[in-house]
Amino acid sequence: MQKVNIKEKLSKFNEHWSPKIIGEINDCYVKVVKLQGEFVWHKHDDEDEMFLVIKGTLTIKLRTEDITLEEGEFFIIPKGIEHMPVAENEVHVLLFEPKTTLNTGNVSNERTVEALEKI
Amino acid sequence: MQKVNIKEKLSKFNEHWSPKIIGEINDCYVKVVKLQGEFVWHKHDDEDEMFLVIKGTLTIKLRTEDITLEEGEFFIIPKGIEHMPVAENEVHVLLFEPKTTLNTGNVSNERTVEALEKI
Repeated sequence: MQKVNIKEKLSKFNEHWSPKIIGEINDCYVKVVKLQGEFVWHKHDDEDEMFLVIKGTLTIKLRTEDITLEEGEFFIIPKGIEHMPVAENEVHVLLFEPKTTLNTGNVSNERTVEALEKI
Repeated sequence: MQKVNIKEKLSKFNEHWSPKIIGEINDCYVKVVKLQGEFVWHKHDDEDEMFLVIKGTLTIKLRTEDITLEEGEFFIIPKGIEHMPVAENEVHVLLFEPKTTLNTGNVSNERTVEALEKI
């Protein structure tokens, strides 16, 4: 049982689009990730997913609108909703999602991360 | 589907020890709460519970040690572990926990909040 400092965890890696596990709560993981550029359109059929911006600006593109998040703001993407995260400049994000969630959801490509690292 | 600004939600109320729901993700709620003073010793037999400090300093007393959290730090209290939050000065906290979680866990007293408000 140890406390976690989110920014200290984010200082431990530099790569983009590679979520790291920093906490485990019931059937969910708490993760941090650094994003820059465009991801891929995808959805999670069975899982809601939460993005909380720690530093920077993140746009979550939906088919119907764009959601722009600044530091201290979060958005919960309901299961089944197609979305694509986009970050013009690097953004640091806290994720909260079920352990079963694959980062690219229904899509499998070079961005898919199967085995997440715990840091 | 709307984004949530955590500090804006915290500006909507002043009372202590009264968690408000600000998001719903799978079988969990995201809540904010303002704490000051001592809570009660309690545990949650079936639910892990996460405290993330948004502003201020929070001590989570365990039977074995004290965990002191500053802004940007979180602690996950495993199910079954007795704990008591203590805040010398007002602290603003984000909580993640299953919808079934009662704020006072196995204890029922004047601090117990049965019906949480969504803000």
